[in-house]
Amino acid sequence: MNNKAKLSHLTPEMLAYMAGFIDSDGSLIAQLVRKNDYIFKFQIRLSVQFSQRTSRKYYLDMLRKEVGYGHVVVRANMSDFVLTEARIVCEFLQLLLPYLRIKKKQANLMIKIIQELPSARVSKEKFIPKSFAKW
Amino acid sequence: MNNKAKLSHLTPEMLAYMAGFIDSDGSLIAQLVRKNDYIFKFQIRLSVQFSQRTSRKYYLDMLRKEVGYGHVVVRANMSDFVLTEARIVCEFLQLLLPYLRIKKKQANLMIKIIQELPSARVSKEKFIPKSFAKW
Repeated sequence: MNNKAKLSHLTPEMLAYMAGFIDSDGSLIAQLVRKNDYIFKFQIRLSVQFSQRTSRKYYLDMLRKEVGYGHVVVRANMSDFVLTEARIVCEFLQLLLPYLRIKKKQANLMIKIIQELPSARVSKEKFIPKSFAKW
Repeated sequence: MNNKAKLSHLTPEMLAYMAGFIDSDGSLIAQLVRKNDYIFKFQIRLSVQFSQRTSRKYYLDMLRKEVGYGHVVVRANMSDFVLTEARIVCEFLQLLLPYLRIKKKQANLMIKIIQELPSARVSKEKFIPKSFAKW
C-alpha cells in the first residue's frame, strides 16, 4: 500500500499532539460489520476517532480541516471526528506511530490488518484469524 | 517568576504530545483548600494531572521520569501523575501553551494565578476575585 502523500502536510508537532490526544481518550476501532450483500457476508470497518463534548464541536471541525480527511459526527452531547477511509487510516497511523505510547500496539495491528486487506479478498480464512486474534 | 531552566529538556514533540493528552482527558486544577494555620485561612492548590487506569501505571511513571518532577498517585482502578509545585506547574504550562488548544484559556489563567501569588501575600482581596472569577 503506497499512499504516502496524502498527509505529508502534518508537522511532527501536529502528529505528536494528535498522538497524545488519542493515547489519552481517543479510539482506534476495528469492527466486523455483517453485510449480507458482501461475498464474505461482512465488512471490516477500521476507524480512528477523536471525541469531544458537542459544545466543543469547533475543535473537532478544526482537526478535520487540518487532517483534510474524515468527517465530524454529532451524537447528542458528544461528537466525534472520524477517519474511516482505509488508506488514510493506514497512513495516519503510520505517521502517528513514532509518537504513540499507550495505543502503539493497537495502531500497529490496525496497520497490519489494512495492509493485509487485499489478501482477504482471496481468502477469508487466511486473513481474519491471524489479525483479529491479536486485538 | 523566572525558573526557565527546569524543564528545558522537554522537546517540542514531547510537549505537543503532552498538550494533546491534557486537551483530551487531562486536568488543570485550581483549588482553594481551607487551612486554619494560614494567614488567609486557605491554601491555593494548583495542579496538572494526567490520569490512566492503574493497570497502565507504568505509562504514568514514564511520564513522571521524563518531566523529572511531580509524583504518581494510585487510587483504586485509576492513577494520576500530578504536578503541584507552583513554579514547575507555571513553567510546564508556559511550555505547553503553543500546543494546547482546548485548555489554552485555563492554562493562561493558571499561569496568571501563579504569577500573582506573591501579591496575594499582601492583599487577599486584591488577588482572589480577579483571578478566580474568570475560571
